[in-house]
Amino acid sequence: MAGAEGEKDMRGYTGDKEAFLKRLRRIEGQVRGLQRMVENDEYCIDVLTQISAATKALQAVSLGLMDEHLKHCVAEAIAQGGETADEKVREASEAIARLVRS
Amino acid sequence: MAGAEGEKDMRGYTGDKEAFLKRLRRIEGQVRGLQRMVENDEYCIDVLTQISAATKALQAVSLGLMDEHLKHCVAEAIAQGGETADEKVREASEAIARLVRS
Amino acid sequence: MAGAEGEKDMRGYTGDKEAFLKRLRRIEGQVRGLQRMVENDEYCIDVLTQISAATKALQAVSLGLMDEHLKHCVAEAIAQGGETADEKVREASEAIARLVRS
Amino acid sequence: MAGAEGEKDMRGYTGDKEAFLKRLRRIEGQVRGLQRMVENDEYCIDVLTQISAATKALQAVSLGLMDEHLKHCVAEAIAQGGETADEKVREASEAIARLVRS
Repeated sequence: MAGAEGEKDMRGYTGDKEAFLKRLRRIEGQVRGLQRMVENDEYCIDVLTQISAATKALQAVSLGLMDEHLKHCVAEAIAQGGETADEKVREASEAIARLVRS
Repeated sequence: MAGAEGEKDMRGYTGDKEAFLKRLRRIEGQVRGLQRMVENDEYCIDVLTQISAATKALQAVSLGLMDEHLKHCVAEAIAQGGETADEKVREASEAIARLVRS
Repeated sequence: MAGAEGEKDMRGYTGDKEAFLKRLRRIEGQVRGLQRMVENDEYCIDVLTQISAATKALQAVSLGLMDEHLKHCVAEAIAQGGETADEKVREASEAIARLVRS
Repeated sequence: MAGAEGEKDMRGYTGDKEAFLKRLRRIEGQVRGLQRMVENDEYCIDVLTQISAATKALQAVSLGLMDEHLKHCVAEAIAQGGETADEKVREASEAIARLVRS
């Protein structure tokens, strides 16, 4: 979604930007926490448990962004119709495939 | 693996600690990079692509830690035999299940 | 997409129905093959390798169905707009979340 | 684990063979059920939901087989020690990686 002149483009997630930034900062903290655990030779299984938690948190951010993208960017492209719509759906499907396979 | 008196416990990954720390610091950088992308209203699909990359990097760290855990902690417990071995294998299986489901 | 009177509803995948059926029949064959491997006490790792192959094949069918669903069912609902569109996008996002978490 | 002369090799899962076969037969039924859903033009989201269920069932069989493999095949190889043990752990780690990435 093109922003007005000089303004940044509006994205599907722009309305929830602060919430997404907060979640990403928390995940950054989780990854720093993992470093401390390894630094302190904490038990492998405990480190693995925390990595699974960080992975799930990242996954949840992806699903949130994808939902916003479908609601805004893809919906607007479909409303325009034609090649714009086809390209946006193809792109979304490829992103979903990367998500499923990561 | 119990360390000598006053020493931290040795873990399966202790021998590769620096390599794991380096990878975790890089992932921390990736997550900060995600924050900048969201801050700058970068395109949703591009943010999603970078999240998939960070998720795969975390996954690779998990698999590395699991491999070291099997080679050292589980192997030593099995060499001791008895309940210690059973408990260690059960624990490893549960960690593998969490990994697969995250 | 409602079919004409007495006709089955048209689905996003209806155009590629034969291709999807062929892939599902192949996956059915893979699962029967797994049974033969277990019946014949084949090596655990070899059975696990074939299960990963069957899981990937199922995943690919899901991604194909999701792509068709976005292209047809979701696109049509969005073109109609209003609550129909919102509901269809919400539903698609939930299906994507199940896919990612399975 | 080598079986006696003329007998099939014993595998980690041999003791639970019937339970694994039963689960695989049920998954085969689920995949046939998917074919019927597609044959009958059932709603895409409903088909996707059933595919996620079949994928989770396959995943659970993998985790069960891996657990048995660790308990029996890997444990026995570790008890023997030396290269046999290293090879078995390397092989298990690779199978875990395939599981995580499928």
